[in-house]
Amino acid sequence: MSAAETARSRSGRAARRAERAVKGAVGAAPYIVRGIPTYDVLGEESLQRIEAAADRILAETGIDFRDDDAALALWKKAGARVDGVRVRFEPGMLREILKTAPAEFTQHARNPANSVRIGGRNVVFAPSYGSPFVMDLDRGRRFGTLEDFENFVKLGQSSPWLHHSGGTICEPTDVAVNKRHLDMVYAHIKYSDRAFLGSVTAEDRAEDSIEMTRILFGPEFVEQNCVIMGNFNVNSPLVWDGTMTRGMRAYARAGQGTVLVPFILGGAMGPVTSAGAIAQALAETMAGCALIQLERPGAPVVFGNFLSSMSLRSGSPTFGTPEPAIGSMVVGQLARRLNLPLRCSGNFTNSKLPDAQAMMEGTMSMLAAVQCGANFVLHSAGFLDGLLSMSYEKFVLDTDLCGAMHAYLRGVVVDDNALAVDAFAEVGPGNHFFGCRHTLANYETAFWDSELSDNEPFEKWEQNGAEDSATRANRLWKKRLAEYVAPDLDPGIDEALRAFIARRKTAVADQWY
Amino acid sequence: MSAAETARSRSGRAARRAERAVKGAVGAAPYIVRGIPTYDVLGEESLQRIEAAADRILAETGIDFRDDDAALALWKKAGARVDGVRVRFEPGMLREILKTAPAEFTQHARNPANSVRIGGRNVVFAPSYGSPFVMDLDRGRRFGTLEDFENFVKLGQSSPWLHHSGGTICEPTDVAVNKRHLDMVYAHIKYSDRAFLGSVTAEDRAEDSIEMTRILFGPEFVEQNCVIMGNFNVNSPLVWDGTMTRGMRAYARAGQGTVLVPFILGGAMGPVTSAGAIAQALAETMAGCALIQLERPGAPVVFGNFLSSMSLRSGSPTFGTPEPAIGSMVVGQLARRLNLPLRCSGNFTNSKLPDAQAMMEGTMSMLAAVQCGANFVLHSAGFLDGLLSMSYEKFVLDTDLCGAMHAYLRGVVVDDNALAVDAFAEVGPGNHFFGCRHTLANYETAFWDSELSDNEPFEKWEQNGAEDSATRANRLWKKRLAEYVAPDLDPGIDEALRAFIARRKTAVADQWY
Repeated sequence: MSAAETARSRSGRAARRAERAVKGAVGAAPYIVRGIPTYDVLGEESLQRIEAAADRILAETGIDFRDDDAALALWKKAGARVDGVRVRFEPGMLREILKTAPAEFTQHARNPANSVRIGGRNVVFAPSYGSPFVMDLDRGRRFGTLEDFENFVKLGQSSPWLHHSGGTICEPTDVAVNKRHLDMVYAHIKYSDRAFLGSVTAEDRAEDSIEMTRILFGPEFVEQNCVIMGNFNVNSPLVWDGTMTRGMRAYARAGQGTVLVPFILGGAMGPVTSAGAIAQALAETMAGCALIQLERPGAPVVFGNFLSSMSLRSGSPTFGTPEPAIGSMVVGQLARRLNLPLRCSGNFTNSKLPDAQAMMEGTMSMLAAVQCGANFVLHSAGFLDGLLSMSYEKFVLDTDLCGAMHAYLRGVVVDDNALAVDAFAEVGPGNHFFGCRHTLANYETAFWDSELSDNEPFEKWEQNGAEDSATRANRLWKKRLAEYVAPDLDPGIDEALRAFIARRKTAVADQWY
Repeated sequence: MSAAETARSRSGRAARRAERAVKGAVGAAPYIVRGIPTYDVLGEESLQRIEAAADRILAETGIDFRDDDAALALWKKAGARVDGVRVRFEPGMLREILKTAPAEFTQHARNPANSVRIGGRNVVFAPSYGSPFVMDLDRGRRFGTLEDFENFVKLGQSSPWLHHSGGTICEPTDVAVNKRHLDMVYAHIKYSDRAFLGSVTAEDRAEDSIEMTRILFGPEFVEQNCVIMGNFNVNSPLVWDGTMTRGMRAYARAGQGTVLVPFILGGAMGPVTSAGAIAQALAETMAGCALIQLERPGAPVVFGNFLSSMSLRSGSPTFGTPEPAIGSMVVGQLARRLNLPLRCSGNFTNSKLPDAQAMMEGTMSMLAAVQCGANFVLHSAGFLDGLLSMSYEKFVLDTDLCGAMHAYLRGVVVDDNALAVDAFAEVGPGNHFFGCRHTLANYETAFWDSELSDNEPFEKWEQNGAEDSATRANRLWKKRLAEYVAPDLDPGIDEALRAFIARRKTAVADQWY
């Protein structure tokens, strides 16, 4: 394209279309059903070598299951070799156990229209998870509070491009550590009508989270259906900690979902080479998912992945870099060979601001998630500062990218209308397509329409204040919060939830660690 | 990953590794040989439907070849139906002609170590092309000058992550329109020792560009080898303008390369639906590439692609949006079915600053280029403002992303070393991999090391001035220019080039249009 052509193409249309402002081309949906294949980068032989390496780790080195005698008993009964807390597995044993795990399941939302289907060709976006700090352009970085937490639940609920309310969007550090899960679960129920994650930091907090869903959905419904999930971490390398496994088993026992995620920072909690880190992740995740199936065969479980890398100059972890992005594609292939739903990456970055670095890294990471076939994309919105901070501005920038991913995952539709063959005969060489029948019939749904990107000509952008996109994002999240309306919640249920929380809060003293 | 784990993983390592600062993990190469497959999103039936739609456009509507009687004569001789300037083609005819086009060819650089192989699994990055304006954070937006042009050639040459010097990196608007090609080609030869593009704006300027390569390489070498290419645009829809085709034929006649690129802004120069725009692009590009083969069978020609979209609210073109990104994957599949080298997208954006929008759009667009199998990625660095401005800061941000793409395209290596199986036995559950033999043997080459991303902990980043990445980029391009050293050029050749330019400049009066 020559510059002259670019300039020419801009004249005239703005005025002509000003009155036809249309909302984004892609309608909101409870989740995405992908229209494009996954991006499979490794061939059969390489995949088998990684699987064989994982099998060898499981058989020879083994995995520690610490502080959870019930887990060790389950492994013994299943025929694993248990030596103290070290458990070793014959090749093929875990794959056999995993056959009872569902390839696809529904997590119900209190608004049935927002229930999500996890697995298969489905893609579900959830906000970022676990930051102790929050950030915005006005107040900078500070510890997160319950008010921040509620704000992020509201911002998530306000976006048509997220599908799930997430879990610990930020740590509400003004609430006692042993009680904040009650306020977080309540906030998800009260300020959102989407599916959400419960607590994982202690078994009784997991039980509390599930109990609150029984108040919301009724105990019979909860017994029969997945209405809550917990996101659990491996203590990589090769350790499943009892705090995690007891919580995981609590979810599974109740028939609820678990997402099991190794956290491998290459060179620290695993090998510095991707193939080795992936083999380790496969071993760790398979063992966790199999334990879930031993606890309750058929319980929904999601194969999780969190590959990362580190800066060799500073030793800091890095996020949104190319090696984890391409490594995720391989993890996706391996998860599909196990027939398990997949959780992958999200909008990762190590930037401390919602700047060019943030979206270069975030976009590389988010595209990897959707290309690798992730079914549940935690950390889809808000991630800054290597996950130490949730950013208000990045949250709305990221949800805008989530919107773009809806259009991306739809792929290229090929049918008679899309091929537009008759339009060429109508328009002919050298003429424009502005007013032709095909354009008029299709233009309102043709293109993703970003709410945050500035597509005006330079002069108009300058007249409008020459703002960068972080500044526009700052205005947008404030607008969203100002316009937020809570979804209706049955007053009786609300009352019962509040009573449960009050009871649980008075039962024990505050703990701040 | 919990926040606590993130924080924990950061402690201690910075000091331990501070003295072991290493240069980026991926070494510079004259071009990339991809280690991962392309991302093929459409199945056989859909591809055939698009091809059939293109064939129908070519047979029924046809393409205008305007102001070039020699081109019309070539078409008549080849058996096309010529009606005035309208040319129609029987299905299959163009594919047959295209069989003489090379699937892969070498464009020679004056430094043989920098010659690039275009086609096959090879990927070549070149700077952005054609902006009338330049921008930097200090001086804002202004018309480009020859000094800017030379600066960008120098910045390109300074980056190990670009492979090609490009063409009209910005318009040197302080030089007469009919003479600036001489200064641009000279700057590419003088300040870079990589391959480059010549002028396309008039047949005699194309001839001048090629003549300068004869001075540089010797006429015999130029007759036998590709040493220069021209990047030509279709006047979409369905018009090849004589200015373009006469220039294209000049390159082909001299055995030199051409890159032929439709510019389709969906809804303006083509249908608003992707499949139709892709069918149109296929028809236009096949016709252009076939004309090259009629002019000189076997002449190198690159199948070009420039899909875009528009804002339906403002009528402005949009760049780096999801529809062109996913559409590029389809264009890649179609080009490979023709066995032609492919040019695709680059680091596109409509942002007016090197901000979050710029890199969200740019990264989506650049990843599409490398995933779709583009062999020649024009617009790899500097693109802002819908191509109206070359940005100094974006240039170095983009070259950093180009570096990341080197690591990305290498993919996941699976061999005994990468699988690190022995390391697990050495380290064992719960221990870290920092000092193990495998880490020590591999850490220096394990990860891409961005020169611009800040991966320090927040506190250290704050102490260092809390800069955003655009500010760091501003510092980096100035450092690059200050440290730039021109590659040696034979004084006799330099003299001869200057004499040629002086002769050509005095032969005609300045023209400013």
